Amino acid sequence: MKPAVVLLSGGLDSATCLAIARSQGFACYCLSFDYGQRHSVELKAAEQVAKVLGASEHRILSLALAQFGGSALTDTRIAIPISGVQPGIPITYVPARNTIMLSLALAWAEVLGSHDIFVGVNAVDYSGYPDCRPDYIAAFEKMANLATRAGVEGIKLAIHAPLIDLSKAEIIRKGIQLGVDYGLTVSCYQADAEGLACGACDSCRLRAEGFATPGVTDPTRYRA
Amino acid sequence: MKPAVVLLSGGLDSATCLAIARSQGFACYCLSFDYGQRHSVELKAAEQVAKVLGASEHRILSLALAQFGGSALTDTRIAIPISGVQPGIPITYVPARNTIMLSLALAWAEVLGSHDIFVGVNAVDYSGYPDCRPDYIAAFEKMANLATRAGVEGIKLAIHAPLIDLSKAEIIRKGIQLGVDYGLTVSCYQADAEGLACGACDSCRLRAEGFATPGVTDPTRYRA
Repeated sequence: MKPAVVLLSGGLDSATCLAIARSQGFACYCLSFDYGQRHSVELKAAEQVAKVLGASEHRILSLALAQFGGSALTDTRIAIPISGVQPGIPITYVPARNTIMLSLALAWAEVLGSHDIFVGVNAVDYSGYPDCRPDYIAAFEKMANLATRAGVEGIKLAIHAPLIDLSKAEIIRKGIQLGVDYGLTVSCYQADAEGLACGACDSCRLRAEGFATPGVTDPTRYRA
Repeated sequence: MKPAVVLLSGGLDSATCLAIARSQGFACYCLSFDYGQRHSVELKAAEQVAKVLGASEHRILSLALAQFGGSALTDTRIAIPISGVQPGIPITYVPARNTIMLSLALAWAEVLGSHDIFVGVNAVDYSGYPDCRPDYIAAFEKMANLATRAGVEGIKLAIHAPLIDLSKAEIIRKGIQLGVDYGLTVSCYQADAEGLACGACDSCRLRAEGFATPGVTDPTRYRA
């Protein structure tokens, strides 16, 4: 089996992304980050998802992103917006987060001798983050091929973003086909220590819209 | 003064790069990494260099790169080569290091409202690392402009690599003009706790060649 590094947050999208990578026959090395996110309970979810979906390995890397601040996800003094998804870049955007995480995935991939990195970014039902767009992913891939030994040796390194042009409902249908248990995943930006969701943040809203599909049951556990 | 983020290792190149950024009138926010490098004494050098060259702030970020291994700089079981600079990518190459460091600089820049990042990479008298080449820097800059708020808002973010096509001797002459005290810098890959250099690793050899210039004194302190 070819090795792949899979970024795994513990949310719905990255769990689906892992299931897709597994279905394509990759041995999956999952990477999560303890970056000071207020919903750090997602890391417990990531651990379970990695185990259930047959990851070869799962690592959680500490990253002092909160010291830079600038995001409601890492600075508890900034409130999480709960009035609905707005146009533009929301305050939950974490500066350069996907670039940092993909860079660390790139390091691990190079050491593993892997030329495949999976990331569950999505540019349809998403929060307006600049680092979720297809042209960003293409530019990262191009840069990564110049950054590393693989590029010098003429081996192509691929950044796979299999969810990038799917709607949330399509992502969920795909995951259900592949046997993903979404009850294990945590999407809420302010999930509590038990993983119970608020139901009002952008992430909860996008997730709920995805589950509002005929024949699909929403396993999300909301707090009272 | 416009803010800039400057990657500062504590070595000769990044010190010169900081001096250049200061001479261009930037308020410099210096970023160093405690990434498990065996020559972590360079961080003490970085602290002094930042202070002497008038940095506005200096941060040292912890990064668990050693857990990935794959480099003589982060894995003490792999010996540092001391027989002279060879063609190809040496074992001191740290997978994706510059990409990871530039990504974290990008995060800080975004929070600071800065659109300028300085990095002291050099592609002339260098160690054959893929992430020191001009096309890599250009690709990172392109990616960074798509990754962040600046790109969405049409503001150009620049990755400055002012040393990229200078020889080591030219870098040193430039630094001396700008008042850099190279006695504060540590380049050796296996510098001891006092910052004394081995004189035999690639980094020591490249540095020594740079100081072998008429009229320039080499302030490097070697161990006996």
